[in-house]
Amino acid sequence: MKTADVVVLGGSAAGFTAAVTARRHYPEKKIVMVRKEDLVPIPCGIPYVIGTIGDNEKNIIPDTGLEKNNIELFKACGQEIDCENKVLRTDSEDIHYDRLILAVGSVPTIPPIDGIDKEGVFFIRKNIEYLKKLQTAVSKASSVVVIGGGFIGIEFADEIKKAGVDNVTILELAPHCLSLAYDNEFCIEMEELLRSRGIKIKTECKVESIAGDECVSFVRTDDGEEIPADMVVIGIGAKANSKLAEEAGLRIGRTGAIIVDKTMRTSDDNIFACGDCSKKIAFFGGRPSPLKLASIATTEARIAGANLFGITRESTGTVGVWSTSVGNLALGTAGLTESMARAQGYNIVVSVIEGPNRHPGMMPGAAMIKMKLVFDAKSGVILGGQVRGDATVGEMINTISVCVERKMNASEIAIFQTGTHPMLTASPVAYQLVNAAEMAISKMRNN
Amino acid sequence: MKTADVVVLGGSAAGFTAAVTARRHYPEKKIVMVRKEDLVPIPCGIPYVIGTIGDNEKNIIPDTGLEKNNIELFKACGQEIDCENKVLRTDSEDIHYDRLILAVGSVPTIPPIDGIDKEGVFFIRKNIEYLKKLQTAVSKASSVVVIGGGFIGIEFADEIKKAGVDNVTILELAPHCLSLAYDNEFCIEMEELLRSRGIKIKTECKVESIAGDECVSFVRTDDGEEIPADMVVIGIGAKANSKLAEEAGLRIGRTGAIIVDKTMRTSDDNIFACGDCSKKIAFFGGRPSPLKLASIATTEARIAGANLFGITRESTGTVGVWSTSVGNLALGTAGLTESMARAQGYNIVVSVIEGPNRHPGMMPGAAMIKMKLVFDAKSGVILGGQVRGDATVGEMINTISVCVERKMNASEIAIFQTGTHPMLTASPVAYQLVNAAEMAISKMRNN
Repeated sequence: MKTADVVVLGGSAAGFTAAVTARRHYPEKKIVMVRKEDLVPIPCGIPYVIGTIGDNEKNIIPDTGLEKNNIELFKACGQEIDCENKVLRTDSEDIHYDRLILAVGSVPTIPPIDGIDKEGVFFIRKNIEYLKKLQTAVSKASSVVVIGGGFIGIEFADEIKKAGVDNVTILELAPHCLSLAYDNEFCIEMEELLRSRGIKIKTECKVESIAGDECVSFVRTDDGEEIPADMVVIGIGAKANSKLAEEAGLRIGRTGAIIVDKTMRTSDDNIFACGDCSKKIAFFGGRPSPLKLASIATTEARIAGANLFGITRESTGTVGVWSTSVGNLALGTAGLTESMARAQGYNIVVSVIEGPNRHPGMMPGAAMIKMKLVFDAKSGVILGGQVRGDATVGEMINTISVCVERKMNASEIAIFQTGTHPMLTASPVAYQLVNAAEMAISKMRNN
Repeated sequence: MKTADVVVLGGSAAGFTAAVTARRHYPEKKIVMVRKEDLVPIPCGIPYVIGTIGDNEKNIIPDTGLEKNNIELFKACGQEIDCENKVLRTDSEDIHYDRLILAVGSVPTIPPIDGIDKEGVFFIRKNIEYLKKLQTAVSKASSVVVIGGGFIGIEFADEIKKAGVDNVTILELAPHCLSLAYDNEFCIEMEELLRSRGIKIKTECKVESIAGDECVSFVRTDDGEEIPADMVVIGIGAKANSKLAEEAGLRIGRTGAIIVDKTMRTSDDNIFACGDCSKKIAFFGGRPSPLKLASIATTEARIAGANLFGITRESTGTVGVWSTSVGNLALGTAGLTESMARAQGYNIVVSVIEGPNRHPGMMPGAAMIKMKLVFDAKSGVILGGQVRGDATVGEMINTISVCVERKMNASEIAIFQTGTHPMLTASPVAYQLVNAAEMAISKMRNN
């Protein structure tokens, strides 16, 4: 039997980061990563293989990071956790652990649709061989239906179009694509852009069946429309992969995720869990959060990895920070959108500002930034922010994320010290984050 | 005699922002801005008029912002403050104020160099007529010497080159350009870029004289070199414009700036000051800070404007946040650089990380980000950060600024919740800010 101080089960974003973090905090410990995959795709990069990168083997989390950090890679499939004896049984050798980190991810949600098992129907699996087949199918397809208009759905749709497929249609249950991620006005901008790029979008529609002989030939929606398709991609979400944990007797939440405390410890003190497989608690309100993102996974992994032999870090709860980009348009959210905040019963003040991210605004490369901030009306504390703009949105949203996590109020944000430059940002007079906060204060006064 | 609740003297970044902030916080007050200029240049945009924008009248703070905010513009030159009677005397009508905000900026430092008054020698004055003359001189010049390799110096040099001048030379007293803004390794990168763009740089040299008949013909340095020049631009700093304040009996600091407390109030309770004319206290260490930036001015203006009739905001001290960009290279600093921190006697831990700002790294548009963070070795609190990269640096540095202002420690930064996207940011596994913080923790442990 192998033996290690730390065993990390899973090699994607959470597992990799947990192992590296464990190494940084416990230089003397023996750390083994157990994973079944030969190559691990960068999860967020998966859609971009289709049209932009072109090759799945160029979208890989490199094993050099493991070697550099003296983490042993043991390719095996975890099959059972013997908590009492602290042993992970695999399809190869078993391993005795002192601490175990479960970073086993999620599995795609498979909707109960008639015809879902036909040839040509694909889910998003973090598996290179599977993704290669998906890539091949795209290269042969002339009509693709993407079921689900969330991040994955719109990114896949755009990349499939980019790869040369003539007819690409997104089917979405909600009134708008991305409606779990952004307020409607932002969703509509993205939909308009997607349509201008030749992608068809049909919202408020339910898929009734996927039809065809062996292979898919069309998708039927609940209003009776039949959309021709020689390929279907389903991206409607994922559920925590908690099978092993459940069988081992660890506590599992109602939605199927492994229950962890703020330190990322499971109901067994020697076992931690992080990433898509572990239960998340929302930063605001403290209810379970359904979010599953690689960025959340890595934050949790940095908590789990540090805490293995002595608790030093606690999760503040899942804020929810993300961004999306199609063409030159980028959207980002940190914390609550207006609709989320209202749905959760917050009494809010919203401020919206729009302006260029260069100064003067006619500087080359300028893009119009639209920023929307949501504040608690009583305390003035920021609940969230959304940004629309160009590539700088990816970092802007992280500035807002720090403001949210630090529970800054509008006045503190209004006088936070920004650096500005004509070629890089809005002017200091017009800097959107600061001004949107200042405008919110005026509204609070008038409330 | 005119009368107003609030009189703001000065119409550049500080004055404009102070007036607008006053309006937002005091909707019912009569606010008058007094300024002598017909048109006010956007201060940070001044260098970019030369080669990029081409026209000084396209780099203007628009008066529409005043109209929209119901701020009366009174074009006059402030000549005396009668504190006892609360009257600002001008070269036109006098104005009685209830509260006065001094936002009168700075004047260029004029070095005691022989020949400094020759024709063809220019300073950076925030005056459109003067700047038009400068622009005309550039258009006729074939050899320009820029004295001072700080922000203004390198930006002017690059823009003058861009405008078609054959020979552009920067003369800098220190061993490197930008050495007050960045650690040497970053300065050297910028110098290499400037040289590759055809700009000559001579460091560790003092200008002995500017020679020529009426017009400048060459600049002589202390090592005896004579550099031909038909134009000289001097950008070696500025000093607070505190003449009026001093004559009115307000307290003035040793370096000539108007002394203010944390609320931006001067020694007269009815008079506030902000921007280049007011004294700054450093966020770290609490000593006087020599920084003069439009972004600092606007933050101070947002404090002054809000506090006029009841204190609600206090300055935390000047953090020092800035960015610089030439071509595709951008540099940014928030807080202390390594050399500043060491010079101030901090016991520090430094971590440096380099990686792409897309994931995978071969995504189109990826740039290599180099991030250097400085932490207090004992408390683990961040003292500052520097970033080198592309246009996203402008916003990255603001994320770091919030971390600095909120006095976050390395562990808090390591688990702050980032949003990441293949097209917009580094991967969540490799996100530089988080990883640099994590690496610093390892170093602290080994100290």
